[in-house]
Amino acid sequence: MDSAAGQRHLSIITLITDFGLSGYYVGAMKGAVLSVNPAARVIDITHEISPRQVEQAAFVAAAAWPYFPPGCVHVAVVDPGVGTERRALALQTPHGWFVGPDNGVLSAAIPDDARRDGAVAVPEGCHAVVIEKQRFMRRPVSATFHGRDVFGPVAAHLTLGVGIDELGNPVSEMVSLPPFRAVRLPDGSLRGRVVYVDHFGNLITDVRRDDLAEGEYVVTMGGREIVGPARTYGEGSGLIALIGSAGFLEIAVGGGSAAQELDVAAGAILTVRRR
Amino acid sequence: MDSAAGQRHLSIITLITDFGLSGYYVGAMKGAVLSVNPAARVIDITHEISPRQVEQAAFVAAAAWPYFPPGCVHVAVVDPGVGTERRALALQTPHGWFVGPDNGVLSAAIPDDARRDGAVAVPEGCHAVVIEKQRFMRRPVSATFHGRDVFGPVAAHLTLGVGIDELGNPVSEMVSLPPFRAVRLPDGSLRGRVVYVDHFGNLITDVRRDDLAEGEYVVTMGGREIVGPARTYGEGSGLIALIGSAGFLEIAVGGGSAAQELDVAAGAILTVRRR
Amino acid sequence: MDSAAGQRHLSIITLITDFGLSGYYVGAMKGAVLSVNPAARVIDITHEISPRQVEQAAFVAAAAWPYFPPGCVHVAVVDPGVGTERRALALQTPHGWFVGPDNGVLSAAIPDDARRDGAVAVPEGCHAVVIEKQRFMRRPVSATFHGRDVFGPVAAHLTLGVGIDELGNPVSEMVSLPPFRAVRLPDGSLRGRVVYVDHFGNLITDVRRDDLAEGEYVVTMGGREIVGPARTYGEGSGLIALIGSAGFLEIAVGGGSAAQELDVAAGAILTVRRR
Repeated sequence: MDSAAGQRHLSIITLITDFGLSGYYVGAMKGAVLSVNPAARVIDITHEISPRQVEQAAFVAAAAWPYFPPGCVHVAVVDPGVGTERRALALQTPHGWFVGPDNGVLSAAIPDDARRDGAVAVPEGCHAVVIEKQRFMRRPVSATFHGRDVFGPVAAHLTLGVGIDELGNPVSEMVSLPPFRAVRLPDGSLRGRVVYVDHFGNLITDVRRDDLAEGEYVVTMGGREIVGPARTYGEGSGLIALIGSAGFLEIAVGGGSAAQELDVAAGAILTVRRR
Repeated sequence: MDSAAGQRHLSIITLITDFGLSGYYVGAMKGAVLSVNPAARVIDITHEISPRQVEQAAFVAAAAWPYFPPGCVHVAVVDPGVGTERRALALQTPHGWFVGPDNGVLSAAIPDDARRDGAVAVPEGCHAVVIEKQRFMRRPVSATFHGRDVFGPVAAHLTLGVGIDELGNPVSEMVSLPPFRAVRLPDGSLRGRVVYVDHFGNLITDVRRDDLAEGEYVVTMGGREIVGPARTYGEGSGLIALIGSAGFLEIAVGGGSAAQELDVAAGAILTVRRR
Repeated sequence: MDSAAGQRHLSIITLITDFGLSGYYVGAMKGAVLSVNPAARVIDITHEISPRQVEQAAFVAAAAWPYFPPGCVHVAVVDPGVGTERRALALQTPHGWFVGPDNGVLSAAIPDDARRDGAVAVPEGCHAVVIEKQRFMRRPVSATFHGRDVFGPVAAHLTLGVGIDELGNPVSEMVSLPPFRAVRLPDGSLRGRVVYVDHFGNLITDVRRDDLAEGEYVVTMGGREIVGPARTYGEGSGLIALIGSAGFLEIAVGGGSAAQELDVAAGAILTVRRR
């Protein structure tokens, strides 16, 4: 099926939420999707974003969405402002459709160099609208659960070929988060932070592969120094530093947990200098 | 595909269980479903019901099942009596099919005003049978895992158009839980309880929107008084009271956890009076 | 669709990983699968294997894979050696396809009596290859995330009918774990261990149904004696011993947690003797 813009649809809807896995939220949202399009295929990315952590959701989105084929509808609902004046957005890009609150959670749909903290222009070649038309929502719309009543149904309508322009009025700006990128200090070193701690206790930072010069470097964190780069988690013993699969510097422990070893959590600060 | 009763099938099977997500139970049950109908689409509602908490499962079901389109098969397996004399039920209603042990976990398939604590008549327009016919089960049937050996395969057979009457003998009564509803006290106030604590620490109670008079009310809980109603989670600071997306009174903290703030869990008692 | 070997494909890909549910790993891997075959159906068995616990994954696989219909592609990624010299394997058997690192995590695809600790012959009637051909991978292949870059894409290519021989060179041996089986002591009693603790606190051991003689037996564990067999979880009060749904001896507490009652975890030792 082709959209108004000629883009091919896959009927795939991916979900990133902070709903948790033990309650009714995920089920009710999937039901609302399938009530609009029983043939839609719902793919769980994660429902375990920490409550209200928009930046964490944006990070996961940036590391997951690019691996999907074009033509999917990606929904991110981390929405502390639900029911307030924050806008609900739908965005069409050459890579697919993106649906969620206009609070930065859709930042991964914006090219990295166009991102900053606050309102940014909708990227060239993309098209954004405020979701307004009630006929694409589940009614009555609750004040507290737009995943079920707005974002899910709208995503399902998009998989049925509804054009993004039918959803509401176009907008020229959307809320962005700054790109995940460490700060370059005057002495040439980098000051970054831990963005995310994974299931293994690996510390994923905002220091990018491109910001690290060739050769060895020294990471200082939690009073410890770690020399990199290692190439795999299996190397050496104790703490290692390497570029992980999302393109960011990670601190890890072969066979163990760096988060435990260093006793740090998301938000922890690190510095990196050439050796 | 149409069932014997002429109802349309969607080949969608939803799952609510207390199996947890770390073991083999969910996978084995999905495999048993797909072995009967490789084209069935299995939708996870939740597998994180607290072990053996039938009422919690019934609450999640009541808040999720109604959002699915008609024609789905809904399976709920919270089954502390597995392998004992408790009956296995299949129920056909105008909304779809419901499969699970006859212990109250299917209460959400019964209209609210027909529910009470114990055996109730199968609702008019619905049809219930005891699952007995071994040819629709995986054999041998274990004594401890009817999700894999009975409920999953039976649900899959239903998506293939097997008539509910083929599964076993009809029954006129089934086990129900009482409706989720706070008690009206002689002075006109309500005494309710926390039914469920969500991922955000919001306390969802059994006090219904319809039982609250117009105007302001005061919730007393854990020695604290909270004036409602708020409309969204973003309002005010500190504790708020509002009607949540499932139609029940919730106690929340904007940006925080009411469960932590009040140090309460499911089962906690509250009272609500007019202000 | 038929494979080169004439086996029917179902386009079903099952996943067992230790990625956890809160991050981007699961989503990125599903995206990589769907980028190769947008029609593939991804079935989550579990992503909550404890980090790097290959044996735990092999146990879950053994208790889940056999319940799926023939013609599925089963992927297991618990891969502490990712990026090192460990091989990536694809295996075709009469039951389906199996994809993962060659570290024992695919042991459940090997008949029980052919398993031992270390390299074993690829079973008769099966066909194994080392995954080498880059054209079936996502490129560039990272050193740390072969679930996304190798195993997911290869599984998706298999559902498209790619022959296993196209993936790389055949191998005659693969790494196995020993079968889950308690040790028979000179006095005829069995010494086993807890392999897995489930969501209910049931202790699943490596003592098999077939190794228990008819009649009553006594389990000794954590200083306690438990007489079996019970038939269901609902029997008696306190600790019970029964054969669970995977065919192994389990220690349980009706309505409670045996893990708590005995204060033991996976790895705990038990002995079983005739009564």
